Amino acid sequence: MEFTAQQIAGLVNGKIEGDGNVKVSKLAKIEEATAGSLTFLSHPKYVPYFKTSGASIIIITDGITDEKSAATLIKVKDSREAFTILMEAYHKQQFAKTGIEEFANISPKAKVAKDVYIGSFTYIGENTLISDGTRIYPNVYIGENCQIGKNCMIFPGVKIYRDSVIGDNCTLHSGVVVGSDGFGFVPNDENNYRKMPQVGNVIIEKNVEIGSNTTIDRATMGSTVIHKGVKLDNLIQIGHNVEIGENTVIAAQSGVAGSTKIGSDCMIGGQVGIIGHINIGNRVKIAAQSGIGSDVADDSIVQGSPALDHFDYKKAYVIFRRLPELNKKIKELEAKIESLTISK
Amino acid sequence: MEFTAQQIAGLVNGKIEGDGNVKVSKLAKIEEATAGSLTFLSHPKYVPYFKTSGASIIIITDGITDEKSAATLIKVKDSREAFTILMEAYHKQQFAKTGIEEFANISPKAKVAKDVYIGSFTYIGENTLISDGTRIYPNVYIGENCQIGKNCMIFPGVKIYRDSVIGDNCTLHSGVVVGSDGFGFVPNDENNYRKMPQVGNVIIEKNVEIGSNTTIDRATMGSTVIHKGVKLDNLIQIGHNVEIGENTVIAAQSGVAGSTKIGSDCMIGGQVGIIGHINIGNRVKIAAQSGIGSDVADDSIVQGSPALDHFDYKKAYVIFRRLPELNKKIKELEAKIESLTISK
Amino acid sequence: MEFTAQQIAGLVNGKIEGDGNVKVSKLAKIEEATAGSLTFLSHPKYVPYFKTSGASIIIITDGITDEKSAATLIKVKDSREAFTILMEAYHKQQFAKTGIEEFANISPKAKVAKDVYIGSFTYIGENTLISDGTRIYPNVYIGENCQIGKNCMIFPGVKIYRDSVIGDNCTLHSGVVVGSDGFGFVPNDENNYRKMPQVGNVIIEKNVEIGSNTTIDRATMGSTVIHKGVKLDNLIQIGHNVEIGENTVIAAQSGVAGSTKIGSDCMIGGQVGIIGHINIGNRVKIAAQSGIGSDVADDSIVQGSPALDHFDYKKAYVIFRRLPELNKKIKELEAKIESLTISK
Repeated sequence: MEFTAQQIAGLVNGKIEGDGNVKVSKLAKIEEATAGSLTFLSHPKYVPYFKTSGASIIIITDGITDEKSAATLIKVKDSREAFTILMEAYHKQQFAKTGIEEFANISPKAKVAKDVYIGSFTYIGENTLISDGTRIYPNVYIGENCQIGKNCMIFPGVKIYRDSVIGDNCTLHSGVVVGSDGFGFVPNDENNYRKMPQVGNVIIEKNVEIGSNTTIDRATMGSTVIHKGVKLDNLIQIGHNVEIGENTVIAAQSGVAGSTKIGSDCMIGGQVGIIGHINIGNRVKIAAQSGIGSDVADDSIVQGSPALDHFDYKKAYVIFRRLPELNKKIKELEAKIESLTISK
Repeated sequence: MEFTAQQIAGLVNGKIEGDGNVKVSKLAKIEEATAGSLTFLSHPKYVPYFKTSGASIIIITDGITDEKSAATLIKVKDSREAFTILMEAYHKQQFAKTGIEEFANISPKAKVAKDVYIGSFTYIGENTLISDGTRIYPNVYIGENCQIGKNCMIFPGVKIYRDSVIGDNCTLHSGVVVGSDGFGFVPNDENNYRKMPQVGNVIIEKNVEIGSNTTIDRATMGSTVIHKGVKLDNLIQIGHNVEIGENTVIAAQSGVAGSTKIGSDCMIGGQVGIIGHINIGNRVKIAAQSGIGSDVADDSIVQGSPALDHFDYKKAYVIFRRLPELNKKIKELEAKIESLTISK
Repeated sequence: MEFTAQQIAGLVNGKIEGDGNVKVSKLAKIEEATAGSLTFLSHPKYVPYFKTSGASIIIITDGITDEKSAATLIKVKDSREAFTILMEAYHKQQFAKTGIEEFANISPKAKVAKDVYIGSFTYIGENTLISDGTRIYPNVYIGENCQIGKNCMIFPGVKIYRDSVIGDNCTLHSGVVVGSDGFGFVPNDENNYRKMPQVGNVIIEKNVEIGSNTTIDRATMGSTVIHKGVKLDNLIQIGHNVEIGENTVIAAQSGVAGSTKIGSDCMIGGQVGIIGHINIGNRVKIAAQSGIGSDVADDSIVQGSPALDHFDYKKAYVIFRRLPELNKKIKELEAKIESLTISK
């Protein structure tokens, strides 16, 4: 897809300086842009790249520089905002498919609303609802009795087990599994394990994004709940009956064990492990690779495995590095005291 | 699906108190149950919920309370056991499909036994055997020369590479990969890596359950072996030529590197890393996020990275938190000794 | 497939001792080999297995032993090398399919070169190029505008998002996701997050191998780049705009956050976490489970979370184990000094 400077200026309500007929077909950073690229300049520290950039069109915040450029300029009030609007438009048109492709298996008892895309090799089970404007890519499995909201993006290879509920505007990336069995086994008399049937479900509220190959287990009974606005990165594990509060963000490869409740607006780093059956408050921050073994109060910032207050952890770790030195010092003190005692 | 109190009483051999025609269609915890739900009361601490529960039917352990309830009661000897039996029955009927759906590609040289379900977009390779009663969901790939036992559940999107052997009553959740290549590369003369072909296979014995997106690599030569009764949670990595003993349980996101042997009846926490080419004994317990770098004896309980005896780790970690305080104390001791030495 | 000793001797340029018509159909280690197996003897420590091995054919390094064996021997200059060549040949013939299977959906605007295999339920998007000799297994998704090089192996269930570029001789194992959105969200005025559209792509150069269920995010703008010869194990997370240098090897379950640059010839252990926006030099070694929070210089060897020089970490950890003992010693010193002060 190609756009002219004039078309872009119209979209972002900007003022053209230079040739309005110049065309671009890709987006780039100002320091990497080549001919045919659109870029932007919003921060003074990037002004040095402005004159040398190979971009064909640069959206600039009006007044940021008086330098001249070979590129066509589009002057706006906030060039970063304008550029983001263009990225969103560009992104949206890349995923605007509708219709049902060949080799899909949609149950006659499923209900598919309007403006929906369903790709090849996708399976939609009985009594499942796909709402308006949702795009389901190829090789997706959605089991029985599911509800998928409006304007969702379900990328290739997502698997959604029966009874799952997904709100509006959710994005599930490739390989995500929603609703697989929780890890529930009880030792029995024959010295092995009996599986506790997992008969609950998963509820994902609106505006949730879930990264590739992340897994969310169904509840044993009741529901595993991901509240609205939550963002989960790739390869995360969410156990059965977990509840994650609104707008909490979790980075890649973290895991939350069964029945733990996490509050809203938390920021959880990568490779964090959270034990089962505990409560994490609201606005909690957890450093990457931490291990959380007990309740965490609202507004805490924690680090370590097991996790401490992050300042305490950092202070302790500074001394940890110096342990060999401390050990030597203690030995010296022992020797001195010994000599003092003897000399007395 | 709806059941009456009378039907349920018949299944669990219970005695009805109240309206035997009341119907339920879902299972719930006593504190969350609403009209139309079946629940149970087995522990005295839940008696307070008994009177206020919205459940339509409550299975109770005979003699646990004399309180009255608006719900229909079904009295049994052990209400938890009775409820588990019902959950199992409920779970089983949800997954009782048989037959072969459209758009499956089953090799004419594969052998499919009776009472089998094979979903759409599932591929079964040459010389592969699917045994009686096994259910294979849509979008599954099973390569050449595999043997899949009886009454297995293979959920959507599982990938099983050629030559794999899977025993009876196994459950593989969505996204599981069995038999991908082990990570075997040797440096060569051109300063890069030559791949060692991985020509062994994976053997999974009976009654094994494997969680979503877990990966199990094939052996370089010989077999990677998961013995009977093993339970693996989600997102676990099992390297080539690993052997895991009977009834060992591993929590989510743990990894076992190549050629390591783990004994039977072990309990391994989440996010544990185990190095290659070592032996873990029987009945070993490993705390979450531990790192195991050398052999572990039978019946050990270990923690930390690298892992220590768990008591030693806990005791050391208690002091770790106090390191800044200890450091201060050592400085004070130095000063005191200095003054003693001078004053002498 | 069966081979005679004569056929094998021909392939590896060896000299037969014994029955040249003996047949083998599998490869095995010398200590595990049974009738019908081919094995090799290259290291003196395995000579004890030589006489008792059940193998039908043994490739031996000429001169390694004078013992007799019931097996047919094939004498060569370097038996390990000869055996590796046979393993490679055996491996190759197992994956030699060509042609397009039923139920594939290949866009009429895609370009598929010669000697290609495309399995059932595989989707190839518009303007995508599949080059000569590449094998794409069932249930694979390749989006629009992708370029896949020559002689690649794309195993079942791989998902490659639009605009991805993959070089020659790459192997992608089952469940790999290439090009999913980076984790880019910025807080907005309504106290939640706005998604930054991810409009860049992923470039994977030649000779790269990627393990099962590993995920590689597309760049926000520009490219996430995996340079030639890189080997990634299973369940690894590579964030947006990351760059990994030539011949770097990363073990399972490690994660690299956005915009970090890793040099060439690095060896990174399992479950390592690397923070975003940093530089890791060339030939760096990182121990398993380490956490990297800042730049690492060329040729460093680091360990710990946060990581230190690996010798420093080991020395500190030795003292960490003894912390309770040190704590006791400090208390004793305090008491002694106290008594010295009093007695003075």
